[in-house]
Amino acid sequence: MAFMIAQRAYIKLYLITMVEQHRGYGYEMLEVMKKEFEQYGYVPPQSEIYRALHELVQQGIFYRTKKLKGTDPKVDFQEIVLYHFTDDGSDKADLYKKQVKADLDRCIGMLHKAVHDNY
Amino acid sequence: MAFMIAQRAYIKLYLITMVEQHRGYGYEMLEVMKKEFEQYGYVPPQSEIYRALHELVQQGIFYRTKKLKGTDPKVDFQEIVLYHFTDDGSDKADLYKKQVKADLDRCIGMLHKAVHDNY
Repeated sequence: MAFMIAQRAYIKLYLITMVEQHRGYGYEMLEVMKKEFEQYGYVPPQSEIYRALHELVQQGIFYRTKKLKGTDPKVDFQEIVLYHFTDDGSDKADLYKKQVKADLDRCIGMLHKAVHDNY
Repeated sequence: MAFMIAQRAYIKLYLITMVEQHRGYGYEMLEVMKKEFEQYGYVPPQSEIYRALHELVQQGIFYRTKKLKGTDPKVDFQEIVLYHFTDDGSDKADLYKKQVKADLDRCIGMLHKAVHDNY
């Protein structure tokens, strides 16, 4: 078992929750993630967030749709990427979240143990 | 700032505490570390423990002594390595522990936040 929970798993957890809350607009998810942990001095690298989204698609949990924003694509063109659960994506996500919860609890235990043992 | 506390820092913290407790016998430190986190499914790699000890020596916190165990080195030969604080090693160690404590608290906060936000 790894020492601490993987950054990728931590990010995927948040992405899943955002899609659960129908906040699956790609650009907004990126922006939320970049701001969410500022008080902890942690900014998830954009490349990690992209890889996490890609993995969730590969795992069959998310699928992507694209649409154009603006009335005339020739003049005012912006592509919007949206993430949704596949048919069984929500069940798969629940299972994944359970596994991550066990790892979060394990890591919280290891960190509390270090505080208890060394201070 | 990194996502989670580094494995190296976590291990160094325990090594410092063992020397504080006059348990600086190299082999025993290795054995204790390998058993200490079993309930968390984590066994620190021996190479990481060696590197942590090496860094603590490089940082001027520990120094090493060696002695021979057994009465006749020709017959019964075993080298024992012991770690001790240098003259200002204890002060340097206190400062290091303070920094690690801040990071432990930060990580505990981030993990609790993930539980709160996603479950």
